[in-house]
Amino acid sequence: MIKTTSEIAVRLIQSVGGDHMVVAAAKVSTSGESALQFSSPESGEENAGLINYLVKMRHGTPFEHSSLTFFVHAPIFVWREWHRHRIGFSYNEESGRYKQLEPLFYLPPSNRPMMKVDGWKPGRPKFELAKEDVWVSLCENLAKSYKLSYEMYEANLALGIDPGLARDCLPVGIYSACWVTCNPRSLMSFLSLRVHDERSQFVSYPLYEIDVAARACESMFQAGWPITHAAFVKNGRVAP
Amino acid sequence: MIKTTSEIAVRLIQSVGGDHMVVAAAKVSTSGESALQFSSPESGEENAGLINYLVKMRHGTPFEHSSLTFFVHAPIFVWREWHRHRIGFSYNEESGRYKQLEPLFYLPPSNRPMMKVDGWKPGRPKFELAKEDVWVSLCENLAKSYKLSYEMYEANLALGIDPGLARDCLPVGIYSACWVTCNPRSLMSFLSLRVHDERSQFVSYPLYEIDVAARACESMFQAGWPITHAAFVKNGRVAP
Amino acid sequence: MIKTTSEIAVRLIQSVGGDHMVVAAAKVSTSGESALQFSSPESGEENAGLINYLVKMRHGTPFEHSSLTFFVHAPIFVWREWHRHRIGFSYNEESGRYKQLEPLFYLPPSNRPMMKVDGWKPGRPKFELAKEDVWVSLCENLAKSYKLSYEMYEANLALGIDPGLARDCLPVGIYSACWVTCNPRSLMSFLSLRVHDERSQFVSYPLYEIDVAARACESMFQAGWPITHAAFVKNGRVAP
Amino acid sequence: MIKTTSEIAVRLIQSVGGDHMVVAAAKVSTSGESALQFSSPESGEENAGLINYLVKMRHGTPFEHSSLTFFVHAPIFVWREWHRHRIGFSYNEESGRYKQLEPLFYLPPSNRPMMKVDGWKPGRPKFELAKEDVWVSLCENLAKSYKLSYEMYEANLALGIDPGLARDCLPVGIYSACWVTCNPRSLMSFLSLRVHDERSQFVSYPLYEIDVAARACESMFQAGWPITHAAFVKNGRVAP
Repeated sequence: MIKTTSEIAVRLIQSVGGDHMVVAAAKVSTSGESALQFSSPESGEENAGLINYLVKMRHGTPFEHSSLTFFVHAPIFVWREWHRHRIGFSYNEESGRYKQLEPLFYLPPSNRPMMKVDGWKPGRPKFELAKEDVWVSLCENLAKSYKLSYEMYEANLALGIDPGLARDCLPVGIYSACWVTCNPRSLMSFLSLRVHDERSQFVSYPLYEIDVAARACESMFQAGWPITHAAFVKNGRVAP
Repeated sequence: MIKTTSEIAVRLIQSVGGDHMVVAAAKVSTSGESALQFSSPESGEENAGLINYLVKMRHGTPFEHSSLTFFVHAPIFVWREWHRHRIGFSYNEESGRYKQLEPLFYLPPSNRPMMKVDGWKPGRPKFELAKEDVWVSLCENLAKSYKLSYEMYEANLALGIDPGLARDCLPVGIYSACWVTCNPRSLMSFLSLRVHDERSQFVSYPLYEIDVAARACESMFQAGWPITHAAFVKNGRVAP
Repeated sequence: MIKTTSEIAVRLIQSVGGDHMVVAAAKVSTSGESALQFSSPESGEENAGLINYLVKMRHGTPFEHSSLTFFVHAPIFVWREWHRHRIGFSYNEESGRYKQLEPLFYLPPSNRPMMKVDGWKPGRPKFELAKEDVWVSLCENLAKSYKLSYEMYEANLALGIDPGLARDCLPVGIYSACWVTCNPRSLMSFLSLRVHDERSQFVSYPLYEIDVAARACESMFQAGWPITHAAFVKNGRVAP
Repeated sequence: MIKTTSEIAVRLIQSVGGDHMVVAAAKVSTSGESALQFSSPESGEENAGLINYLVKMRHGTPFEHSSLTFFVHAPIFVWREWHRHRIGFSYNEESGRYKQLEPLFYLPPSNRPMMKVDGWKPGRPKFELAKEDVWVSLCENLAKSYKLSYEMYEANLALGIDPGLARDCLPVGIYSACWVTCNPRSLMSFLSLRVHDERSQFVSYPLYEIDVAARACESMFQAGWPITHAAFVKNGRVAP
C-alpha cells in the first residue's frame, strides 16, 4: 500500500553563529587580535552597514563561520539537483542499499504551475496552472506507476535480491531523507539559483519542488541571520 | 517500446598531463624556477621512485595538475552515488527538464552477484550469484515496472505537463549521460572507495554497477599515468 | 620597538555538534526520517562502536555536520602552510592592506629541535636541540633583522606609501591573527598531516610551529568530540 | 648579494580544452549521448550565442571541463592572496623547508600607483603615483631591509639551523615559484576579484601586484578561450 504526499519537509536541526559572527569575522582583517571581542548584537545599525557592504563588494568569507544543519524529506528528483551543490555543503542521505525504502511518493499540489507553454526551449521555462481534470490524470498516471514500481520492488526483495539492485525500478518521485549542512555563504549561493524571484539580479528558473525546499531553508536562515538575509535581498540575491 | 541493457559505457573524451607532470609539479618544492624543465618521460626509474614516495607519504597536490574528462552512460542510481564526490569533480548531466529521456533501462547481467546472504547488515554486504530462474524473475519484474513507468511518462508529456514533473515516475534504473572531469588525485580517491579490491589497505564494498564504471575509468587512468597507477596499487590503493 | 614571543595562541571561539551529531547523521542512511531522534549522549558504548566503525571504514561524511571556529595568533610562515588546506576550511585573516601590522615577531623556544642533521634531504627531516649559544645566535640574527624590517616598514608608511606595498619588507616571522572554521572531518585531515605522531599509520613530518598550533586545536577537538577523537587515534590517525 | 626585480612572470605550462568543450559539455543537458559529437570550432556564431547565454544565466559547470596550468614567479605577498582561492585551484610551491631560497626580491616599478590618498579606509583604496624621490626612498628602504634579512638567513643556515626556521626573517617581498592549475570557471572567479576593471558589474580593488599576475593569466585564457572570454567581459566580468 503506497502513500502519496505533496509535502516537502524542512526542519532546522542545529545552527550556530549569526550576524554578530559575520561582523566579528570581517573585523579580523582590520583589527587583528582584538577581533576576539565580538561586536554585541545590540549595535545593529552599524552591523547592518558593514554586512551590506560585505555582500555588495562580494567579500564572502566572513559568511562562512556559521553553520546550519537541515533535515529534509524530499523526493529523489529534488536530491538529484541539490547534491550538485558541492562547495560548503555536506550530506548524509538515506540509503537504498541498507534499508527498505518507505512507500511514500510525491504528487504535485493542484496549484503547482505545470502546463508547458513554450515547448522544450531550455533556460526560462514557463508553466501555467493545469485544469482540474489534467491534474487528476497526471496524479493517476503517477500513482499507477508508483504503485507497480513498489510492488515489483517488494517482489524483488522477497526473492532475496540485493536491495541496491532490487530498487532499480523505484521512481525518482519516491521520498528520501537527508541531512544537509551548509554555511550562510554556501546557502546564499544555493538560494540564488534555487529560488525564483523576479527581483534577483540574475533571475533563476528552478524546478518548483526544489524552490519549495529552498524557500523553507531561506525562512530559517532569515530568522537566524536577519541582517545578512536583508543584505542578500537588497543586493539582488547575489551570493557574496 | 523500451530498451534494456546491462552495459555501462565509459569513454575518455579528453585528457592532459601524465606521470611527467606529477614529477615536474613535485619538483617545484625543491627546485623552484627550474621546475619548468620537465623531467623527460625517459627517466622512468627515478620518476617511479619519486612518485611512489609521494603516494606513500600522502603528498597529494602534485597529482592535481592533470585532467581527465569521461563520457559515461549509466543508470541514475549510479549517478546518485557518483555525484556525492564533490571535490575535484565536475559534472554536466543530461536533464529531464529540458529533453525527453530515452527509454533505455538497466537490467543486471546474470553473473552479477545479487543474492543477499547476510540480511540488512550495513557495511560489508555479501552477495552470491542468483539461480537462473531468480535472475529471470528479477529482470521480468524490473522490465514490467520500467515499461509502465515510461508509458505513464509519455502519457504525462502528452498532457502537456512540465517534463520536470512528468518524469517523476521514471525509475532510477533509467540511463542518463554525463560528462565527468577530474584529476588523478580526485580520481584515486574515487577509485579507493568505488572499486572493491581485497588488496586495498581500506577495503571498500561499493555497489556492483559503480564498481564497473570505476574500473573502466581506472584502466584509462592506468594507460595515461602508468607509474602513478602502479604506485597507487602498490600503496594499498590509498589516495594520496 | 619590536616585541618577540614564542607563543602560538589558539582559542576556541565557537563550536557546535558533538559525537551525538556524528551518530545521528550516520543513522540517516539506515533509518531515514527517524534519524531526527538523536541518540542520547548517554548511550556511549554503542556510539563508540559505530563511530569507530565509521572511521575505520572511512565513511567521512557524518563527521561534517559539526563545526569549530578557532582564533589563532601565529607567524605568517604558519599561515602559509595552514592556508593550503582548502577543503572544509574557512579563513578570515588580518590584512596588511587595511591596518598597520603590530610589531610582534616569532622567536623559537630553546627546546625547539632545530639543528639540521641530514642535510637538505626532503621528506623526513630530523632535528636536534641546539646548544645554548647557537640558539642565542639564531635569536639575535632574527631579532636584528626583524627590527630593521619594522623600522623600514614604518619609514615607508611615514612616506605615505600604500600599506600593501610598504609591508613588503616585513618577514614571515611577524604575527598575524586569523579565524579558522572547520568541521571534524576537515580537522582530522589537517591533524593527520600537521601533527607528528609515531603511532600514525602515515607518519607526517610537519614544521614544528604548525604542529604546536595543530596540537592545541586537537585538544579542543578532543574535549568536544571525545569518542570521535579516540577513534581517530585508535585507527592510526587516518582521517575518514 | 641580493637581486631585485619588478617582474612578475606568468607562463602557460599546459592547457587543454577550449570554447568547443564548453559548448559540448553544455549540450549534454539537452542532447544526452549525442553530446559526444563535439560541435566543430567552425560554427562560431552559434557557439558564441550559447556561451554568452551560459555566462549570463550563470550556468557555470560547462566551464569546468577545461584546464590551465601556469608557472608563476611572484613575491610571497602575492601568494598569500592567491592561495586564498580554494575551489578549483591546485598549487605546488617552492618550499623554504627543503631548499635554500634564492635572493630575489620585489621592488615596485615607478609607475605603480603607491601614494595613499584616503587614509586607512578599507574597501576602495585609491593610490596616486609617487614623486621620483619618494619612490627612490621606498626602494632604498626595502632593499636595505631585504639585504639584511638575507644575510641573517644565510647566517642562520651557516649555524646549521632547520631551513624552515632559519627563514623566519625573510620578507614577504622575496620571490617564490609556484605551479597553479585551474579551470576556466575558477579562473574567471579569480579574475573577477583580482583584476580591477571599471566596467565590471562588481568593481574590485585588488593589490597592484596580483592584478599584474591576473592580467597575464587572463591574456592566456583569452587566447585559448576567445568566445568564453568575450562573454565574460560582455557580462560585466561576473564569473558564471
